[in-house]
Amino acid sequence: MRANFFATVAASVLLAGCAAPQLRGTGDLGIVIERATGSVQIVETSGQTALAKVDGLGDLSHASLVYSRDGRYAYVFGRDGGMTKVDLLKQAIDRRVIQAGNSIGGAISQDGTLVAAQNYEPGGVKVFRADTLELVADIPAAYGNEGKFAKVVGLADAPGNRFVWSLFDAGEIWVGDFSNPKQPRIEKYKNVGREPYDGLVTPNGRYYLAGLFGEDGLAMLDLWHPERGVRRILDGYGRGQEKMPVYKMPHLRGWAVAGRHAYLPAIGRHEVLVVDIDTWQEAARIPVAGQPVFVMARPDGRQVWVNFAFPDNSHVQVIDTESRQVVKRLEPGKTVLHMEFTPRGEAIWVSARDDNKVVVYDTTSFARRLEMPATAPSGIFFTARAARTGF
Amino acid sequence: MRANFFATVAASVLLAGCAAPQLRGTGDLGIVIERATGSVQIVETSGQTALAKVDGLGDLSHASLVYSRDGRYAYVFGRDGGMTKVDLLKQAIDRRVIQAGNSIGGAISQDGTLVAAQNYEPGGVKVFRADTLELVADIPAAYGNEGKFAKVVGLADAPGNRFVWSLFDAGEIWVGDFSNPKQPRIEKYKNVGREPYDGLVTPNGRYYLAGLFGEDGLAMLDLWHPERGVRRILDGYGRGQEKMPVYKMPHLRGWAVAGRHAYLPAIGRHEVLVVDIDTWQEAARIPVAGQPVFVMARPDGRQVWVNFAFPDNSHVQVIDTESRQVVKRLEPGKTVLHMEFTPRGEAIWVSARDDNKVVVYDTTSFARRLEMPATAPSGIFFTARAARTGF
Repeated sequence: MRANFFATVAASVLLAGCAAPQLRGTGDLGIVIERATGSVQIVETSGQTALAKVDGLGDLSHASLVYSRDGRYAYVFGRDGGMTKVDLLKQAIDRRVIQAGNSIGGAISQDGTLVAAQNYEPGGVKVFRADTLELVADIPAAYGNEGKFAKVVGLADAPGNRFVWSLFDAGEIWVGDFSNPKQPRIEKYKNVGREPYDGLVTPNGRYYLAGLFGEDGLAMLDLWHPERGVRRILDGYGRGQEKMPVYKMPHLRGWAVAGRHAYLPAIGRHEVLVVDIDTWQEAARIPVAGQPVFVMARPDGRQVWVNFAFPDNSHVQVIDTESRQVVKRLEPGKTVLHMEFTPRGEAIWVSARDDNKVVVYDTTSFARRLEMPATAPSGIFFTARAARTGF
Repeated sequence: MRANFFATVAASVLLAGCAAPQLRGTGDLGIVIERATGSVQIVETSGQTALAKVDGLGDLSHASLVYSRDGRYAYVFGRDGGMTKVDLLKQAIDRRVIQAGNSIGGAISQDGTLVAAQNYEPGGVKVFRADTLELVADIPAAYGNEGKFAKVVGLADAPGNRFVWSLFDAGEIWVGDFSNPKQPRIEKYKNVGREPYDGLVTPNGRYYLAGLFGEDGLAMLDLWHPERGVRRILDGYGRGQEKMPVYKMPHLRGWAVAGRHAYLPAIGRHEVLVVDIDTWQEAARIPVAGQPVFVMARPDGRQVWVNFAFPDNSHVQVIDTESRQVVKRLEPGKTVLHMEFTPRGEAIWVSARDDNKVVVYDTTSFARRLEMPATAPSGIFFTARAARTGF
């Protein structure tokens, strides 16, 4: 009797102690943002299953995330300024801080020790220790002489433990070197163009590009040669002669680079632009079925997948990069918000928000592999991002 | 007393049940091959520590490995035909088979379900289920009309669950489509050139290249257009006019592709060749301090690191890809055999076999971060390879 009691205790301790978090690799894990419910689903792409749901992440509209260096933790940036560190193995929130009033995303440093958040309110960048979420540096986006602070957009990581971001209201690009995190060195580039609204670092970590909402062009900084300053490229690339209504601003971070060409969404036009990244000249325009939002290259660069703004947001198109033709049109479901390729590109996961599902396609046959229920899914992010620059 | 006894039992069960395999992400893990002792060290690159040693892997001279899709398991290919599946989390051998008499490496399929080994004896390719190591397909490298089998070299993975390999004795390249693994479709390309000795698939998965030992050039197959057949490129690239003694054949798999240029070791000459991969023409030659063996690009493509054959194998050189100049010479230790960049390139790990150590450098400052003891270390492999093509 007594022995039984203790055996039961032993078993309970055992179950409580280790049965719950399963020992597993993290290289095939991912997260699906459920924007309406402030929750995320943890998924895995080998067996293509949902593993768990984690609640309590606050306002996840327009949420994005980055992964820790080891692939175990996601840092989820909510619109409400909440930054939540989710443990994908324990399937639970590890830490959570409200770090601003209104936030729009973040980045993780090359060495994985620092996480940065870009904030609208108060306008600036805050940098935290990735392990504890302790605040390390606070860089208000002060500009002009009237004590104003700009909204920060387009924050991205770059080699050398640098972060790069843009000041929407000020028309500036700032480069912060956090090699010594408590004493960051900030370089400011002024008059880069009116209203930078988003930015990205190219996959090779060399170029920072900011889209300009107030002008028809992009601001480009060569991070190998910051002394050359910010250059204007692709003047007249998007908004063009007659301005069309823009239903949804395209996301620059979705930029596809395949070989020596980048594929980017024209603003307000039913076109994907092809740009030669050796010369930064426009090489072609590809007609598509709506205003492109995300333009994403399959990891091997052979295909580019495109989703669209309202009213064309119930389908996606696939461009063959060799022929520069649309070779496939798919209808995953209502309100396609995001797409994510598996690490080596054999499949793509697509979120259809208003059908409450994620659809997985084979990228060779275009066959629909499966559908997975999710509550108003938006962003999909796989852990392979941890090993890449500019994600 | 009795309670104490059971409490002790409970604690023991707890320790036995879950203290051993620590819950952790696998994105920052790696393996160092210890060739002389048939063992591997499991390491992690965040804290830069050795986690465990695993013995019993047989003959690990010239050993290489690939990672499972989730980053948890390594498939180590030994020279003796042994294939060992190592569990990086349990820090133990999961499975081991002797699949051939003499083997030279392997590859893992795009979807992660198949592992292939390339064998000298018996000459051919064997394909196994990645989970169980059950044999799925056996493709003898039969050639000619006399019942001969060729040594297989240059096995690499390609998109579409394909493997590509070369037949040394036959001068052939074979492409196997394993979408239906039990009924693979094999395409054979004959008369590609004499004695292909190694091969690779470019990081974008498009081109297969085989080095030719019996001729002065490379055989190239465009996997987007296999109907165009195998083409000869870079005729006269390496061996040149007067043949120099070759102390160690360079490894093609180390090929560096940075932007539109590939950097490859000349054979027998103290040069690194720069090739334009749009045209496959030679673009430049960079003089280096010895016969190059591995020529590896930092993930951002800004640097290329080179190690050398005897008698120049105690140092490495760093080429700046923009100026195409050697910008640094380092002396990690005696007999440098291999190098591996951390996933985002902030550091590089270098094995110095005859000094029994691994040396870690910061790739920005070139500072020596630390040294780690290892027994006759050769290959170093990090799990980020799982998400990449052609590794």
